[in-house]
Amino acid sequence: MNPLESLVPRPAHAQVRPGSFVLDQHTSLGLQPRSGLDGVARWLRSELALDLPAVPVADAGIVLGLDRGLSNEAFTVDVSDRRVIVRGGDPAGVFYGLQALRQLLPASAYRRAGAAGAWTIGGCHIEDAPRFGWRGLLLDVARHFLPVHDVLRVIDLAAMHRLNVLHLHLTDDQGWRLEIERYPLLTQVGGWRRESQLGAGPTAQGDGRPHGGWYSRDDVAEIVAYAAQRFVAVVPEIDLPGHVQAAVAAYPTLGAGLDGVTPDVWTRWGISDHVLSLAEPAIRMVEDILDDVVGQFPGAVVALGGDESPKRRWHRDEAADARKAELGITRDADLQNWLLRRLATRLADQGRRTLLWDEVLEGDDVPGAIVASWRGDRGVALGTRRGYDVISCPADSVYLDYRQSDSDDEPVPVGIALGVEDVYEFDPQPPTLPPGGGTVLGAQCQIWTEHVDSARRLDYLLFPRLAAFAEAVWTSGPRDVHEFTQRLGVHGERLRALGVEGRDPSGPRPWQSRPGVPGNPMTRTAMADHLSTIVAGMRTE
Amino acid sequence: MNPLESLVPRPAHAQVRPGSFVLDQHTSLGLQPRSGLDGVARWLRSELALDLPAVPVADAGIVLGLDRGLSNEAFTVDVSDRRVIVRGGDPAGVFYGLQALRQLLPASAYRRAGAAGAWTIGGCHIEDAPRFGWRGLLLDVARHFLPVHDVLRVIDLAAMHRLNVLHLHLTDDQGWRLEIERYPLLTQVGGWRRESQLGAGPTAQGDGRPHGGWYSRDDVAEIVAYAAQRFVAVVPEIDLPGHVQAAVAAYPTLGAGLDGVTPDVWTRWGISDHVLSLAEPAIRMVEDILDDVVGQFPGAVVALGGDESPKRRWHRDEAADARKAELGITRDADLQNWLLRRLATRLADQGRRTLLWDEVLEGDDVPGAIVASWRGDRGVALGTRRGYDVISCPADSVYLDYRQSDSDDEPVPVGIALGVEDVYEFDPQPPTLPPGGGTVLGAQCQIWTEHVDSARRLDYLLFPRLAAFAEAVWTSGPRDVHEFTQRLGVHGERLRALGVEGRDPSGPRPWQSRPGVPGNPMTRTAMADHLSTIVAGMRTE
Repeated sequence: MNPLESLVPRPAHAQVRPGSFVLDQHTSLGLQPRSGLDGVARWLRSELALDLPAVPVADAGIVLGLDRGLSNEAFTVDVSDRRVIVRGGDPAGVFYGLQALRQLLPASAYRRAGAAGAWTIGGCHIEDAPRFGWRGLLLDVARHFLPVHDVLRVIDLAAMHRLNVLHLHLTDDQGWRLEIERYPLLTQVGGWRRESQLGAGPTAQGDGRPHGGWYSRDDVAEIVAYAAQRFVAVVPEIDLPGHVQAAVAAYPTLGAGLDGVTPDVWTRWGISDHVLSLAEPAIRMVEDILDDVVGQFPGAVVALGGDESPKRRWHRDEAADARKAELGITRDADLQNWLLRRLATRLADQGRRTLLWDEVLEGDDVPGAIVASWRGDRGVALGTRRGYDVISCPADSVYLDYRQSDSDDEPVPVGIALGVEDVYEFDPQPPTLPPGGGTVLGAQCQIWTEHVDSARRLDYLLFPRLAAFAEAVWTSGPRDVHEFTQRLGVHGERLRALGVEGRDPSGPRPWQSRPGVPGNPMTRTAMADHLSTIVAGMRTE
Repeated sequence: MNPLESLVPRPAHAQVRPGSFVLDQHTSLGLQPRSGLDGVARWLRSELALDLPAVPVADAGIVLGLDRGLSNEAFTVDVSDRRVIVRGGDPAGVFYGLQALRQLLPASAYRRAGAAGAWTIGGCHIEDAPRFGWRGLLLDVARHFLPVHDVLRVIDLAAMHRLNVLHLHLTDDQGWRLEIERYPLLTQVGGWRRESQLGAGPTAQGDGRPHGGWYSRDDVAEIVAYAAQRFVAVVPEIDLPGHVQAAVAAYPTLGAGLDGVTPDVWTRWGISDHVLSLAEPAIRMVEDILDDVVGQFPGAVVALGGDESPKRRWHRDEAADARKAELGITRDADLQNWLLRRLATRLADQGRRTLLWDEVLEGDDVPGAIVASWRGDRGVALGTRRGYDVISCPADSVYLDYRQSDSDDEPVPVGIALGVEDVYEFDPQPPTLPPGGGTVLGAQCQIWTEHVDSARRLDYLLFPRLAAFAEAVWTSGPRDVHEFTQRLGVHGERLRALGVEGRDPSGPRPWQSRPGVPGNPMTRTAMADHLSTIVAGMRTE
């Protein structure tokens, strides 16, 4: 196979040129002066385990530079006998150019040691640019904690696929994973649970095994810096007003309608009925927490969730009643959006935009918010029409925790069958979009981790589907799934060289299956019915 | 605390000197010409995430060089206002000097990103050298497979503690983890099992969860190269003639006394009664396998086990009877040693020494073998007296899978309580050693992984006890356990910066416990009785 044909994501333009370049321990590196590419150069040296000594551009074997004629994140790669030139519209573009260049090396070049370190690259010219600016991966570290070193590995894998957002789902009913200085019990109490539900559906049992862990402030600083070096922005999510049982277990003040009963950190999957109190002390505490989050995460966006928030406990809560009366609000969705608006305003005062799930469309406006539409194109269309910027992340296309085939062998099968081809067919941009003030910023795939109790299981669910998602959100123009699956052969070698234990096209290896652990598979029809029922609550005005 | 007092292992000599050196992104690096230190320099750049551009020694901020007056692995570190000079007796010595230097930086310097990259190091002079040349860690990847990226992380942690041998226990009754070209079923069949025993003792049940995985040839090459860059030699262990049930499941030809029944890969812990056949085709097959092992592992030593090998099936096996008759051997132990001698000779012909557990002392001689004495000082003394070079690895001191305290909270408590202080008190050299031809090469701690089903659990068992072991095998002269445990405070910060989830002095965190999973704790008296019973079989002549 022509190596240019094995690139993932596929470039907009790639052409074979005469000649070939030998990359080895004598290769030198030249950076265009004042280009701010030192970090990229350091990354390259470390990844290839080569010294690549710095020399003036005129003498360099590999030249990195900026080309102001290119857009942000766009790049060109030129390989000739004499040299390799990688230019980007910005440092991120150069980084992505180097990711493309690396794919022209043998798969062994992805190993951390033992590769030859002497590779011949055929002459070529490549031009590429991303279709969307938001290319995200949501990693749920609340349902199952992932140690820092595994998170860094996920960042490497995301960056290799030219994703640029890591959305960290840090809090949920089943765990609170972020150290907050003023409220240590959030982690000390909320950071672990007595056991976990094993499997899905009505027959699932508890496993009797405690689970926990959280990220210290230093851990967060490391994750954020490591991601930034790879041009990945970290978006922290503090999910509220639903999905807060772990926080309420730590600080009952935060809970609505408790009737004096403090819950434990939840040990079941699903949607707990705990919801944030709307009393002023609870909201002030959340504001404190968000101030701390803003201090820890320098990125432009903070996610506040707003999804799947049951209102039963508000209905038996005096503070909620008082708040409704005070505000003259009658609908729960508007009450929720009042809270989100208040918090989003505070975040905006600190220079942050708020990301919310598409439940925000069920209530009145939260100006300036970004909407993550998980329930399909209707949320994308409605959101942009109502003036929101939108990220497309539909459950029925890019929820990578969903089963990968119809086979009973899939481990703990949940959701619909979502093969690598299905993910590849995903298009973040609905074919027709009504006019409106909002823009589709891009897309995001999600890996919810109820049934992901280890990095090995994470690998199985992420790969190769993450590669399909990456291409769907990066590549412009028509895509051919057959051509893609052919390229996956070579790409699979790269992933194996990285130690990724992905899914084989033939299905799970015996030890990747989970016989006897119940799943909760859905048909596509049932999923479509389910999503259309729950989107019915969205307000069109 | 004077930073020199927080070094782990504690150096033979460390002295504060005037001045201080600022290590930052402007620091340059000079290598003594022709010193072969390029790899060490590359490692340093990568670990500190600094460019450290190469300059002539006279101009360099950090100078690395060799000092032929120092022994192998020994080093000196000199920090002054003007520069840092690290000299070693060989490149490994320089590497260990840099490990000591790194301990003079804040713990945050151990993070992979986000550290300041500008550190002030107080003036000092440090001299150090290891007490023993074999400072090993046995990692059992047979009972539970550990993905490559986790193995590389273990290598980093071992090298940081100046260990220089990674003994990979690659095969056992419960799994075969090494790809062998001629015998693919060893991994395809032997590389996974249907389930695992959950816990220890008579009440332990199966967990119903398949487990598996193995290392490809490329994986092995990567592990070996990565370790070599950190001066860690990898010793592969192919355990035989016992502990072979997984191999027999793949190729029944390998099994003795099967009576036509091919076993499954074992799903229980303990010692299976399967044992290698002594028929010529089986031994030839093993020789083929070992040829492949030698090809994959370039190190000087190959381990063949020879431990805990039940002979029941030999007693109902025609080939074993024939072999005894042919050789005029009556004792099982001598029959086993005949096999080991034959294989060790073949390995010797390929330039390798054979490592054997101390059961080899129950039979006649296997010339040239190294004995790993797991049953205490008696094996060390007897082994050296009989002319073997010996590695001390007693179960009652350095089996790091044993429980870390008497508390019922310890997860799946097995063996004796072996706290960090107990490991620290370990001395590889028995106080009096009878004269003999053999030498104590050093020591090795072991982590058997029956109850280690994840890298998180591995962290819990290894740390901080690995630091105690490292100091016991590195440091000459008297050691003070109280002083060590004080130093562990600072060292714990380093480990946390590395993302290591070790054991807190107060005990397991709630989620590190395994309530309800049975263990099999022993008292020290019972352990001593057990070990003395089983060493009674050792031959003194």
